Amino acid sequence: MEIKYIENGSVTSAKGFTANGICAGVKASNTTKKDLALIYCDKVCNSAAIFTKNLVKSDTIYVTKKHLENGTAQAVVVNSGNANACNPDGYEKAEKMCSLAADALGVDENDVIVASTGVIGQPLPIEPIASGIEKLKGTLSKDGGTSAAEAIMTTDTMKKQWAVETVLDGKKVTIGGIAKGSGMIHINMGTTLSFVTTDAAISSEMLKSALIEAADVSYNMVSVDGDTSTNDTLAIMASGYAGNKEITEKNDDYKTFTAVLTDAFKKVAKKLAKDGEGATKLLICKVDGAKDDKSAKIISKSIICSSLVKAAMFGADANCGRILCAIGYSGAETDVKKIDVSYKSAKGEILVCKDGNGLVFDEDKAKEILLEDEIEILVKLGDGNASAEAYGCDLTYDYVKINGDYRT
Amino acid sequence: MEIKYIENGSVTSAKGFTANGICAGVKASNTTKKDLALIYCDKVCNSAAIFTKNLVKSDTIYVTKKHLENGTAQAVVVNSGNANACNPDGYEKAEKMCSLAADALGVDENDVIVASTGVIGQPLPIEPIASGIEKLKGTLSKDGGTSAAEAIMTTDTMKKQWAVETVLDGKKVTIGGIAKGSGMIHINMGTTLSFVTTDAAISSEMLKSALIEAADVSYNMVSVDGDTSTNDTLAIMASGYAGNKEITEKNDDYKTFTAVLTDAFKKVAKKLAKDGEGATKLLICKVDGAKDDKSAKIISKSIICSSLVKAAMFGADANCGRILCAIGYSGAETDVKKIDVSYKSAKGEILVCKDGNGLVFDEDKAKEILLEDEIEILVKLGDGNASAEAYGCDLTYDYVKINGDYRT
Repeated sequence: MEIKYIENGSVTSAKGFTANGICAGVKASNTTKKDLALIYCDKVCNSAAIFTKNLVKSDTIYVTKKHLENGTAQAVVVNSGNANACNPDGYEKAEKMCSLAADALGVDENDVIVASTGVIGQPLPIEPIASGIEKLKGTLSKDGGTSAAEAIMTTDTMKKQWAVETVLDGKKVTIGGIAKGSGMIHINMGTTLSFVTTDAAISSEMLKSALIEAADVSYNMVSVDGDTSTNDTLAIMASGYAGNKEITEKNDDYKTFTAVLTDAFKKVAKKLAKDGEGATKLLICKVDGAKDDKSAKIISKSIICSSLVKAAMFGADANCGRILCAIGYSGAETDVKKIDVSYKSAKGEILVCKDGNGLVFDEDKAKEILLEDEIEILVKLGDGNASAEAYGCDLTYDYVKINGDYRT
Repeated sequence: MEIKYIENGSVTSAKGFTANGICAGVKASNTTKKDLALIYCDKVCNSAAIFTKNLVKSDTIYVTKKHLENGTAQAVVVNSGNANACNPDGYEKAEKMCSLAADALGVDENDVIVASTGVIGQPLPIEPIASGIEKLKGTLSKDGGTSAAEAIMTTDTMKKQWAVETVLDGKKVTIGGIAKGSGMIHINMGTTLSFVTTDAAISSEMLKSALIEAADVSYNMVSVDGDTSTNDTLAIMASGYAGNKEITEKNDDYKTFTAVLTDAFKKVAKKLAKDGEGATKLLICKVDGAKDDKSAKIISKSIICSSLVKAAMFGADANCGRILCAIGYSGAETDVKKIDVSYKSAKGEILVCKDGNGLVFDEDKAKEILLEDEIEILVKLGDGNASAEAYGCDLTYDYVKINGDYRT
């Protein structure tokens, strides 16, 4: 497959899309941080989305689901600073956000995707959003993707945006997106808010299918803290401006589209993990030799989710017991007498466990490897040929600090 | 049921039992902390134990299981400072510990229970244990329970020991025990090492059954960090010296015995949670109105295990979103529109969520309540009559610090 990452690419890179983000003051105390974004396409798009599996859901999810029933959308309205979850009037306010955006952009309110992120259980103030949408109206541009990416950030320390070019049916196709982290992130759907646009011609059914396939090995393999958000929404809109033959079945073009999406989502997944709340290190756990895909996934996720592994990585402590322990309680069946564990980074690789037994190893070398900010935890099982990769981060003082008083 | 807690009671309170603990220097760097204990009964006891469900197990567990196949034991040998897990010669060394203890105490080596706790994957040095057992020999006493309790501590900041008196068949019966915390603690069997003695006359089958029943609502409802240890062992020995009619079936005496054990284990569970690594607060989550016992347990455990709930409690932040979110992803089915949540402590009680919606509440009052060191999180579901109670602790800077470099 052809794939080219576009420097400073964003959710506006694909043909037909503009966006912008501003500070609307959703939180009364906020007078500077961008917290409201609009994404717009000049035509109605085939669209799809996947959502959090948390039973407790923001009403934005019910509204967006309803609006995507017909498989089309033309705009996204999204705020940070308040999750609009667990509020008695959440549904009406989510609908209000859509109708305000629809009026401002001249689109059908049923073609608006709505999302919110922030504090749960506090009433959403609609006034700053209404006046914010008025301000945004007429300011949307190809350059506005970055501002939109900034507007959906909560505790993120860096914005997440990307765009890639590929070729489908001989035509240049662009896909781009924005995403947010960085806490309440766990493996149970396309974690976080993420909005993707493309000029590919592709049906909403195929978009949905591609989203699920790509998210399964990327967003669904990230954990920051084991907590699944109430607001997770991963939505995609396709304008069709690239002029390729519309993808309506799982043909080669579908496979290429999905592979490109997967590649980009994996990069985003790593960014989400690396920018996890308080994180100083990206952890990539690669499991090989598992008896099946499910076991490989379960084991890699169990390691990446272990508080003890995460704290040991923060301390650059090459403790193999933490890894073995997390494999042992993962729930997957494996022969514990055939487990090898290594740590790897830009500074080298070191084997710390062979055949399920801890090794005596060079502690100085191990420390040097683990002091890097991207660490691979390599687990080789002797049970088969399946493999998986999961993404996480270390557990730090700052995670505790950030979440000790999140609301203020 | 009659139950009387004995001041300074311990694993030696019941008739027939003596113990002691000393510094054997299991870790070469340790010259002061007690790290080796013996518990002894002057007769062979009916015995039972339950163990970690982690697939990766210390060899001490396989040896103890084998020794308890006939339902009897007469002594316990246990060290801290090294888990004797994931070592190629772990089994032989665990057996060696038993034969050394057996020789020193003049008992059958098949009647010795062995346990270890500490670093995983490092060879267990048998020499300090051999000379330690020699030193311990002849020093066991009724006063030695406290030293034994100290010898099994790892990152614990306080020793855990207890004893109670009750009446069975008109006879005074004593039950006592010691336990250790305080990290790698999670709901999957009688977490931690815990040794219990009693002078009740009771068969090994009934001991096993009572252990399982009591652990299920106590040890199995504690989580410090979601990590299940490789070494968990909860063992009980019954000397029969109390002279009651031996319990061999689930009669009223069995029920009393189990109820007393449960009461004591719940107290230990709270101590384990309160002394969780780095913890400043005990969290007790009480769920009422669940549709069945399983749902009540799943929901209470999900809340107590949430890193975001734990960090919010550390920060005394009355964030109800964290609680609702943890209920939502717990996996239990419940009507999210019927959830009430309150926080309670010695300073009062405050409702923060009603019918699944966040409330506007007195933040100062909530802060005052949450600044206490024992917090109850009260969840009322509207789905039925089942209830459950889970025990946990806050997530603090010190948890990260302790586990950032556990091995050194």
